[in-house]
Amino acid sequence: MPRELELHPDRLLPVDPSVRGLARELYASVRGLPVVSPHGHTDPRWFAGNGTFGNATELLLVPDHYVFRMLYSQGVALEDLGVRNRQVDPRAAWRLFAERYWLFRGTPSRMWLDWVFAEAFGMGVQLCAGTADLYFDTITEMLASDAFRPRALFERFNIEVLATTESPLDSLEHHAAIRASGWKGRVITAYRPDPVVDPDFEGFGANLDLLSHLTGEDCRTWTGYLAAHRQRRAFFASMGATSTDHGHPTAATANLPASEAEALFGKIVAGAFTPAEAELFRAQMLTEMAAMSLDDGLVMQIHPGSFRNHNAQVFERFGRDKGADIPTRTDFVHALKPLLDRFGNERDLSIILFTLDESAYARELAPLAGHYPCLRLGPAWWFHDSPEGMRRFRRMTTETAGFYNTVGFNDDTRAFLSIPARHDVARRIDCGFLAELVAEHRIEDWEAAELARDLSYDLAKKAYRL
Amino acid sequence: MPRELELHPDRLLPVDPSVRGLARELYASVRGLPVVSPHGHTDPRWFAGNGTFGNATELLLVPDHYVFRMLYSQGVALEDLGVRNRQVDPRAAWRLFAERYWLFRGTPSRMWLDWVFAEAFGMGVQLCAGTADLYFDTITEMLASDAFRPRALFERFNIEVLATTESPLDSLEHHAAIRASGWKGRVITAYRPDPVVDPDFEGFGANLDLLSHLTGEDCRTWTGYLAAHRQRRAFFASMGATSTDHGHPTAATANLPASEAEALFGKIVAGAFTPAEAELFRAQMLTEMAAMSLDDGLVMQIHPGSFRNHNAQVFERFGRDKGADIPTRTDFVHALKPLLDRFGNERDLSIILFTLDESAYARELAPLAGHYPCLRLGPAWWFHDSPEGMRRFRRMTTETAGFYNTVGFNDDTRAFLSIPARHDVARRIDCGFLAELVAEHRIEDWEAAELARDLSYDLAKKAYRL
Amino acid sequence: MPRELELHPDRLLPVDPSVRGLARELYASVRGLPVVSPHGHTDPRWFAGNGTFGNATELLLVPDHYVFRMLYSQGVALEDLGVRNRQVDPRAAWRLFAERYWLFRGTPSRMWLDWVFAEAFGMGVQLCAGTADLYFDTITEMLASDAFRPRALFERFNIEVLATTESPLDSLEHHAAIRASGWKGRVITAYRPDPVVDPDFEGFGANLDLLSHLTGEDCRTWTGYLAAHRQRRAFFASMGATSTDHGHPTAATANLPASEAEALFGKIVAGAFTPAEAELFRAQMLTEMAAMSLDDGLVMQIHPGSFRNHNAQVFERFGRDKGADIPTRTDFVHALKPLLDRFGNERDLSIILFTLDESAYARELAPLAGHYPCLRLGPAWWFHDSPEGMRRFRRMTTETAGFYNTVGFNDDTRAFLSIPARHDVARRIDCGFLAELVAEHRIEDWEAAELARDLSYDLAKKAYRL
Repeated sequence: MPRELELHPDRLLPVDPSVRGLARELYASVRGLPVVSPHGHTDPRWFAGNGTFGNATELLLVPDHYVFRMLYSQGVALEDLGVRNRQVDPRAAWRLFAERYWLFRGTPSRMWLDWVFAEAFGMGVQLCAGTADLYFDTITEMLASDAFRPRALFERFNIEVLATTESPLDSLEHHAAIRASGWKGRVITAYRPDPVVDPDFEGFGANLDLLSHLTGEDCRTWTGYLAAHRQRRAFFASMGATSTDHGHPTAATANLPASEAEALFGKIVAGAFTPAEAELFRAQMLTEMAAMSLDDGLVMQIHPGSFRNHNAQVFERFGRDKGADIPTRTDFVHALKPLLDRFGNERDLSIILFTLDESAYARELAPLAGHYPCLRLGPAWWFHDSPEGMRRFRRMTTETAGFYNTVGFNDDTRAFLSIPARHDVARRIDCGFLAELVAEHRIEDWEAAELARDLSYDLAKKAYRL
Repeated sequence: MPRELELHPDRLLPVDPSVRGLARELYASVRGLPVVSPHGHTDPRWFAGNGTFGNATELLLVPDHYVFRMLYSQGVALEDLGVRNRQVDPRAAWRLFAERYWLFRGTPSRMWLDWVFAEAFGMGVQLCAGTADLYFDTITEMLASDAFRPRALFERFNIEVLATTESPLDSLEHHAAIRASGWKGRVITAYRPDPVVDPDFEGFGANLDLLSHLTGEDCRTWTGYLAAHRQRRAFFASMGATSTDHGHPTAATANLPASEAEALFGKIVAGAFTPAEAELFRAQMLTEMAAMSLDDGLVMQIHPGSFRNHNAQVFERFGRDKGADIPTRTDFVHALKPLLDRFGNERDLSIILFTLDESAYARELAPLAGHYPCLRLGPAWWFHDSPEGMRRFRRMTTETAGFYNTVGFNDDTRAFLSIPARHDVARRIDCGFLAELVAEHRIEDWEAAELARDLSYDLAKKAYRL
Repeated sequence: MPRELELHPDRLLPVDPSVRGLARELYASVRGLPVVSPHGHTDPRWFAGNGTFGNATELLLVPDHYVFRMLYSQGVALEDLGVRNRQVDPRAAWRLFAERYWLFRGTPSRMWLDWVFAEAFGMGVQLCAGTADLYFDTITEMLASDAFRPRALFERFNIEVLATTESPLDSLEHHAAIRASGWKGRVITAYRPDPVVDPDFEGFGANLDLLSHLTGEDCRTWTGYLAAHRQRRAFFASMGATSTDHGHPTAATANLPASEAEALFGKIVAGAFTPAEAELFRAQMLTEMAAMSLDDGLVMQIHPGSFRNHNAQVFERFGRDKGADIPTRTDFVHALKPLLDRFGNERDLSIILFTLDESAYARELAPLAGHYPCLRLGPAWWFHDSPEGMRRFRRMTTETAGFYNTVGFNDDTRAFLSIPARHDVARRIDCGFLAELVAEHRIEDWEAAELARDLSYDLAKKAYRL
């Protein structure tokens, strides 16, 4: 007899009855606000083509590295889950997952998935070995219906705007198709130049050539390369982009004299560079991108500090984004100084900082954002996009940076169906935090009500210029 | 219609009714204890001259870098707030602040300021754009009255002792004037030798010459330089000092053989030193200061880990202490070892450690203070002198260092009017923490009552030998 | 009139009445489970000889560096407590401790000791100056009785299995004697090769010679040395060992080609090595040990990041383990990569990671354990084996690693009488954490019940292959 699946209306709200009452009221006032998703990794092709999503395994298991990394850590082979393996029976893969769903107890994946199961698919029983087939069949069947096509879900999810993330080498054809289709959903792109900025990126040299081809600039010269960036940024902006995104190993920035930057670029394009020179080039490019942002108004996001593809064997066999990216200690104080020395006091520049190193929240990031006009703090990111992670973020940043140097929530996900669940978790946690401040008489109830809306909706729109 | 301003009697106490009840009782027993302020940055001139404080902007806005840094981070120009700008209309500056007072929601500045507004000035409405002028006029008018002269406030605030911080180059004339005046308020100095210890300090060379002039020692020789320190320390002690204070970029200490120390000093005075040599010199001087403390009994405070004047443009235009000091990661385990190898087991030496790097609380500082007889932990400092910061401090240090290796509260402020508010916050948070321990049956109620008094009053007096 | 000593049945459970109710139920279901102690430092001689424990000071004060370090930090001389000083009157030492028992307020030592006093010895009044002699006499008298012999306590404490930790140089004669005695208590060893793996260990060269002697291998050759390890591991396994343990200054691993490893070993045995070479050798040996674990199935534990014997004077006079080991910042992401590149994907290898650097919990350890099949997270260790420390551990690891990449509790103690108290604290804290998750509707009550048993009992047995 499978157990009932039911999402409790008070989930994630503080336990104390009086605080929970306050939190409930705050949450009630924001739960229906539209979703603003200014940074994420959904596929624009979905909204362009509006096709169906396939089966449960393809949609919910194979692309979700949060899910399969946990199964992998407990001895399940990635190929048996269908990762880079089209031979696998999707139902068999789903069963492996369902039988081990208890591994996710206490994780945000469990909360997001239960939301998807209950709210998106209307499942009334819990996922376990005994319900694996019921789940697989029900979900797969529903996915074939029109109500589960991407645009229908976008509308049902009350998404006001959704940003995807593309390389400068992307033609943005899907974004063009969305615009040409007459559909009213607002899906915009964001400029993520890592493939042509990071000399260690796979295929970097070929990427430069492709960038030359796309722009008509000679991207093997420094001036041509920079011009190509400017051109692609303008093109991205024309396709709705309001932001750029930079995923570097560290937060290092540099501010070299033009001639040194050019000479460095020469080494980089020649492929004759040391690891330190690659790092210096990435560092210089953050400052160049800030300069361009000051010109074209694109908001700059820096996502530093992930050691990508830590598991060499998994990378070799299965490629990127397989749950083996591991955070590292990240310095911001020294790393950002060159950029800040040049642009730190620009009120028209907006740089949103993210971190995977929570020890920097109170020590470095809140003090930096609480001083420099150009800096804002992105929300708790990735591993920290979780109830406890969000609470730590608020507790460790608010007292120094305030709420208004933060930028609302990012779901940052490729798991489209979980987007409402993720925003819902953020709204619940923020309302709970605000309710605690009210209960301790640190802010008043009317302030909490304003803040609940700011954190759920307004700050994201403002920070990302949406 | 402006909103009422009223400080809730239970503010900052834990929310659970039974814990709040315990916390209320503990707080009631310590709220009236005198304020012991063993470390801070008020101006002794105030108490010597006992003049009036000027207008609201001059007193509450221009000198408070906690306040103007937040406004600056949100695009307000420092010069428009009157920072290093006497041309600004103080009322206009005050309005800029008042209109943006909501930026401080959730920050300790908001709590301190509301206390000052409500308790010190009796304001009954909240600060906002609509009450800006009312605030400016009321506060400015009250500041002109005798009740708001420094000595009257000192007495009204029930301050038992207040330490200021001076450079060895200071004549301490204001302290002398206070003593000569017959006023009974106890205002003492503390010896902060950074201007003559840190080779990177502005005007270091000239400072050495001035020190020579003041002491009659030749401070360009190692023995003369050390003798000058000893002489000034004795003078400071004669003006009430019981402590020294050292604000170095890191916690590095060194213990060079005398001949090497002397040779290093030679390079320093010649101005021919590398950054590493400057760091080594500061490191050596901490150990020299510890040696002198063992002789003269002055308690030593180390405040390391602030990257001072991080914003080059702001520093150039507006000078030091403009809200642009940013904490950095700080090692204590290796850094303090040379000093501890020499003096760590001295029971008569007392060194109080502070940090801006909370990751060191449980990892390094509590274990060090829980072993070495000479070490004590200063309270949560600067950015962490806040409700959440103080809670983290207690949660992360108590289990390893106990309460009795900590030293009570420091307000560490130049914002004189906020001193009672800051001590009040600390007492509330500590009582709340103790109440939680009682509620979890980790200590008993009578122990909590003793501890509440210890943390609010006794430990500070004992640790600072007051 | 001394105060009553009574352990509150709800101690350490969450304060909110509804959460406390849930926690109480969970705790009631696990409090009686047998103690599984897979890692610790008790003396096998106790169980072999089953003699009596001597007096209160010898048993509870002199060997417990948690206790005497706190007294030392507050100015009590170690020799006056009987540390390395057999001349001291044990009653006088006990009085020094009793008079200062208030120093332990808020520490786990206080909770463990109160448990020992109340539960093990039946004391009904609190320890203080006035009850010092009563305590000393009562405890010392009870220790002379049969009920307080090691085996009787082992049985009374409901210990299912207890692992000690021995050097490869240990004859394991006491373990042999236990087995030969016919006593049914399961006391097993664990292989801790630091004395013959760490070139900086006192007597390293002589230790190699002794290892040669014990094994008949030439441990001054690389192949002989490795063979000796294999032989001793097999011997340890025959005496019940299921794990090895490695206490290195850092988590550095290396994976040198065999010829380079051999050449490095040549330098090490010649005593002609740099600190970096010593570190590289320790790093290489972790990988060698992992290789052997893959062969012989011993679970590998890594306990890195303690700066041992930080206090040079105390080390010189009193030796190791005198409360002067201080945690340091510890990197895992880069440090473990060489080992993980080679063995990270082995499902049959099990490596349990511990840390004294809590900043690594959420940033490095949970992401690593939530991906690599061979990795598990050990519980909150040493300074962090405390109520707040355990809560931080669960809050910072669960969301990314889940519960099932953790391994239950380790008491890791040489204080035999405190073992039940330590497991009891862990069970209470874990049940409280689970109750909070239930109260926030993050897991269901039946899941919490399963998890309570897993965390208290099953995971330790499984992870340590007991």
